Amino acid sequence: MEQRISLITLGVDDLARSRAFYAALGWHGQEVEETVFFQAGGSAVVLWGRDKLADDCRVPPGPGRGFGGIALAQNVRSSSEVDRILAAAEAAGATMTRPAGQTLYGGYAGYFADPDGHLWEIAHNPGFALSDDGALVLPDFGQA
Amino acid sequence: MEQRISLITLGVDDLARSRAFYAALGWHGQEVEETVFFQAGGSAVVLWGRDKLADDCRVPPGPGRGFGGIALAQNVRSSSEVDRILAAAEAAGATMTRPAGQTLYGGYAGYFADPDGHLWEIAHNPGFALSDDGALVLPDFGQA
Repeated sequence: MEQRISLITLGVDDLARSRAFYAALGWHGQEVEETVFFQAGGSAVVLWGRDKLADDCRVPPGPGRGFGGIALAQNVRSSSEVDRILAAAEAAGATMTRPAGQTLYGGYAGYFADPDGHLWEIAHNPGFALSDDGALVLPDFGQA
Repeated sequence: MEQRISLITLGVDDLARSRAFYAALGWHGQEVEETVFFQAGGSAVVLWGRDKLADDCRVPPGPGRGFGGIALAQNVRSSSEVDRILAAAEAAGATMTRPAGQTLYGGYAGYFADPDGHLWEIAHNPGFALSDDGALVLPDFGQA
């Protein structure tokens, strides 16, 4: 199995609400058959009905709206960009779960939850390089 | 907010077990401070303790091990590659949630859950182009 991700699909309760939320953050997607696709670097972020996604995976949708054990992150180039994006997310209807602040690794970050509770960290991490197009390049940690 | 993802962090109960699982699928990572980082194209996949991740997000870890409303996918170049990866995942200890089969969109796909229940679809979708390095390029669906 190659070491890459093609799609990150977020199950949502109300596609129009979710699409409007990401549009308010400046994301431009294409909607096809009640599915919204956003190109995101060499991957795509997809919005799709939560029940449809559960059915597609053949798992019970369950009642759960608690912590799903997964978080997404976007690393940015400055602390002020962290503040700006978190403010935009809050204005778009996100719930702030962790206000922005200094991190243990010498950076600055905060978290929001999108309308369905999907968690996003917005972080400035001086130790992780971003190429001009925003691609993340992990450092060589010098570990096995 | 730019339209990209830097990190996808999977909360795990047993870091060694999870690292071994992904290693069995051929993924090579770096472990730093009880965190495993895998470069994945212009993003990174990260394994980190579920409780630590919940604490980092400032959300309750909860009891939930049900459907978290999110699924990851890797698109590959042939149906036989789908079969091969699903078999490798099962051999590595994954739970098959959906056996591979034809999809409505004319492709071929199946799903597995990793040791913590994180869902992965392995799909051959002739309608979605993959560049030589595996980057996904969405088609122009001709929709707004």
